Amino acid sequence: MFDFKYFTPTKVVFGKNTEAKVAELIEEFGGTKVLIHYGGGSVVRSGLLKKVTDTLDAAGISYVTLGGAVPNPRLSLVYEGIKLCKKENVDFLLAVGGGSAIDSAKAIGYGVANEGDVWDFYDYKRKPAACLPLGVILTIAATGSEMSDSSVITKEEGLVKRGCNSDYSRAKFAIMNPELTMTLPDYQTACGCTDIMMHTMERYFTNGGNMEITDALAEGLLRTVKKNALILYKDPKNYDARAEVMWAGSLSHNGLTGCGNDGGDWMTHKMEHELGGLYDVAHGAGLAAIWGSWARYVYKNCLHRFKKFALNVMEVENTGTDEEIALRGIEAMEDFYRSIEMPTNLRELGVQPTEDELKDMAHKCAVGVGGAKGSAKVLDEAAMLEIFKASM
Amino acid sequence: MFDFKYFTPTKVVFGKNTEAKVAELIEEFGGTKVLIHYGGGSVVRSGLLKKVTDTLDAAGISYVTLGGAVPNPRLSLVYEGIKLCKKENVDFLLAVGGGSAIDSAKAIGYGVANEGDVWDFYDYKRKPAACLPLGVILTIAATGSEMSDSSVITKEEGLVKRGCNSDYSRAKFAIMNPELTMTLPDYQTACGCTDIMMHTMERYFTNGGNMEITDALAEGLLRTVKKNALILYKDPKNYDARAEVMWAGSLSHNGLTGCGNDGGDWMTHKMEHELGGLYDVAHGAGLAAIWGSWARYVYKNCLHRFKKFALNVMEVENTGTDEEIALRGIEAMEDFYRSIEMPTNLRELGVQPTEDELKDMAHKCAVGVGGAKGSAKVLDEAAMLEIFKASM
Repeated sequence: MFDFKYFTPTKVVFGKNTEAKVAELIEEFGGTKVLIHYGGGSVVRSGLLKKVTDTLDAAGISYVTLGGAVPNPRLSLVYEGIKLCKKENVDFLLAVGGGSAIDSAKAIGYGVANEGDVWDFYDYKRKPAACLPLGVILTIAATGSEMSDSSVITKEEGLVKRGCNSDYSRAKFAIMNPELTMTLPDYQTACGCTDIMMHTMERYFTNGGNMEITDALAEGLLRTVKKNALILYKDPKNYDARAEVMWAGSLSHNGLTGCGNDGGDWMTHKMEHELGGLYDVAHGAGLAAIWGSWARYVYKNCLHRFKKFALNVMEVENTGTDEEIALRGIEAMEDFYRSIEMPTNLRELGVQPTEDELKDMAHKCAVGVGGAKGSAKVLDEAAMLEIFKASM
Repeated sequence: MFDFKYFTPTKVVFGKNTEAKVAELIEEFGGTKVLIHYGGGSVVRSGLLKKVTDTLDAAGISYVTLGGAVPNPRLSLVYEGIKLCKKENVDFLLAVGGGSAIDSAKAIGYGVANEGDVWDFYDYKRKPAACLPLGVILTIAATGSEMSDSSVITKEEGLVKRGCNSDYSRAKFAIMNPELTMTLPDYQTACGCTDIMMHTMERYFTNGGNMEITDALAEGLLRTVKKNALILYKDPKNYDARAEVMWAGSLSHNGLTGCGNDGGDWMTHKMEHELGGLYDVAHGAGLAAIWGSWARYVYKNCLHRFKKFALNVMEVENTGTDEEIALRGIEAMEDFYRSIEMPTNLRELGVQPTEDELKDMAHKCAVGVGGAKGSAKVLDEAAMLEIFKASM
């Protein structure tokens, strides 16, 4: 196993009606002027935004609002948010929504707290040295951004999607009321469950260092999400299942399921980022569409982990060769994806890139990761292209 | 399931030679004058204390030292530490050791940062409103105090052992180098493993609210500690096993394995505190000596959880009635204790309380918990006495 750091300072307030505590939490962390950042109209239509502003009004906390964060959140809105914060002397960010609003808020936080162009941090040119304090009211269980150090932004020019990881952006608090996720379309719920599982699977399929306890936690988390994703597919209003998935989403990406390993593989994510930049597909669905092809390309190079996954997560029969067991696990995962109506290839995802577009995605991905990357297997541009092609 | 809060701000730096980072971590959290608090001579003999002071000297951080924290740490030393900190204008506490040094440091931190008698917080008369910032270099995997909100202190007068829980006392950082635990006597290693498992088991055996993901994490943690405790029994210098146990110790008591339940049972701990106050036995051994009697007294009232524990943690055969499976799980746990030379009753623990002493412990325990308490089963003074008697 490898040495590791673990830092999850986010104060989680989990349960029914917890959004009522937003003002006291902002005060606890010193916020006096808040930017409320959200996405589309759903938080307006559901009445959540009004509930939040009413609570802040009652507590005498002043605020400005900025909506419009879209899936694969855009750099232009980040610039707009930075400008607004500076103009209004905002000292605290409140993201109300899912990963898009949170990631966009983190980028705004970097932009306000650091000099220069915020895109530098996403373009790996510089590292942020600070971030405005951030609180979250989570409405979508998926990205885990509410407890993670991660933020992913898309630059419209060239449709470049890039991530920036820094502890400075970890939320001060995260309000998680599973009821707030109940109005989500079924497709988005399934995408969220996929993303959550993938955050742990990216950490699981590694050739560099593992801890038994990390594996045990990861496998338990994956089994729980799988089971509850199937419950939600049939019964989307099931509170307990919503809660299981929501908490799993945070634990899956706050670092817990990667302690002691080499940092994880992450190539399915990196390749999906290219897809998401180009086609604006739902992130979870994009991951599901690529994963099987990735897994079949790399599994022989990481056989002990794929076998363990097959037995302890997918609970397939323990007979035959290690390769047979590993392949059975990959098939079982794809069966699971299909059972919650997630795509297992690009066609099912609804996109049909041309040969040139495939090459372009592979090239941009390779450039983005600095040439070649991966832990289950190191992938270069040619390998990425092969996986993209296999996922057609 | 119940609503919950989860707050684990401690920055964990885990791995070989991580103690070399102590000065930069103290600086990161603003410490300028440090009290280094430790226990017996082992951190002196091992050279760890010198390594720490050399590192602080090199970084130009001034400090004072206070040794002498004993198992079941004493209030008199806490008072001495408070006096020293005030005299020396200490603004940061560094505990070097295990639970005794950490708990004692937390109490000192409360005493410095709040007016009045610090014992009030342990006697449930007042709640602390602050604590000096604390860092930890952990040398014993057991109490989980390095990430928990908990501190347990014994008042010499009347040998009263009481705990105080507050987020203010959560460590800013915890340096965890598994190699530092290798010089521990085998008995203390086994006691530590027991304490670690009990922190999760106290949270597991409940009648009030459960989450599947919490159960999955708890069961995975328990299986990991059980397996690695047996490895360490035969091979105490096994780095990987030391690391598994050390990280499990933190995760077992930072709140993770209790999310969504009613707060846990904790009666084995409460009863052991009386034993520890009176006899100064090792905490883990005291827990092991009481647990079986407690479990047999309560299991019928919490049958579904004892069955689940038997199957998913102790991995006993799934045949017969629920009661038979549950009892098989209790027996398997006791067998495990015996296999690492932990006691399963007071005689094996080496103490023989008189009838009056048993009554006195039950009475003090009942007073301490406010009359009656427990989740697997609510225990009053008479029930506590019965369990103490059964554990003879």
